[in-house]
Amino acid sequence: MQRIAIDMDEVIADTLGSYLRVYNADFGSNLTREDLHGRHAFDVARPEDIPRIRQYFQNEKFFSDIEPMPGSQEVVKALAEVYEVFVTTSAMEVPISFMPKFLWLKQHFPFISSSHIVFCGDKAIVSADFLIDDNVRHFERFQGEGILFSAPHNVNETRFRRVDNWQDARAMFL
Amino acid sequence: MQRIAIDMDEVIADTLGSYLRVYNADFGSNLTREDLHGRHAFDVARPEDIPRIRQYFQNEKFFSDIEPMPGSQEVVKALAEVYEVFVTTSAMEVPISFMPKFLWLKQHFPFISSSHIVFCGDKAIVSADFLIDDNVRHFERFQGEGILFSAPHNVNETRFRRVDNWQDARAMFL
Repeated sequence: MQRIAIDMDEVIADTLGSYLRVYNADFGSNLTREDLHGRHAFDVARPEDIPRIRQYFQNEKFFSDIEPMPGSQEVVKALAEVYEVFVTTSAMEVPISFMPKFLWLKQHFPFISSSHIVFCGDKAIVSADFLIDDNVRHFERFQGEGILFSAPHNVNETRFRRVDNWQDARAMFL
Repeated sequence: MQRIAIDMDEVIADTLGSYLRVYNADFGSNLTREDLHGRHAFDVARPEDIPRIRQYFQNEKFFSDIEPMPGSQEVVKALAEVYEVFVTTSAMEVPISFMPKFLWLKQHFPFISSSHIVFCGDKAIVSADFLIDDNVRHFERFQGEGILFSAPHNVNETRFRRVDNWQDARAMFL
């Protein structure tokens, strides 16, 4: 059975959507995904606002409020019947996120067993045939094939096979 | 650079030592490592005491009180100069342990960067040349070589190369 490792933030979890809601409410702005074309959310914030923005991630509720990506639950469940699926996500930069991220997965992806949830900062350690991720840096030392999940910050990346959404991923893998 | 993945509990962390202190204080007993020859700690507890014992692990202090294994800090530091070292540990069965285990590693093994700390239940996902672990079940699907770190419960296991302590590990790898 082939193994697929799947990233969490911006792949099965709409972390950016949550961020934009909190940011826009905080600053009375109307920033959208489209405004971020080719850039990370932090790239468009004023440098003097960054410390304030970092505080969003020190609140467990920020993580529990995140919505699943459209179609992710249905398609990952279908993938898990044909492949061995692991969720591989980083939480080390924000240790307070370990527990809410784990509980979020238990709630929204109950068919992924706890033993197949992996918290790791450097995904060179991941042994899998495929890694679906929005960050190309994780593909550099990954020994399987990296599949880029489209996100505003990676739209200009051309080195890897790409899926734009979970319907694309279903078509590629099933 | 070859990569070594190192387990935490019973390998770099004397979790059993902490367990025995708490258990003996709780039950007024004098259970030792030697009493556990060939058995897990839970194997020698009375079945009716297991729920009470499980509560030990719902206290973050249990994890922060654990002592490093003798020699582990010095030898792992030396290994990290020659190998790429990851710490790979499970916390999924006791989610409350994520944060104290992470903070424990930051305190006792500050030379291991956060990006090289991995929480994973099923170590089939670990990509490394060697895995030093006390649980042989993790070696079954591991693609590198499993090196068994001696613990009372695994003394009768003969299928793998073994180190009895960190001086042994130094001699094997350096």
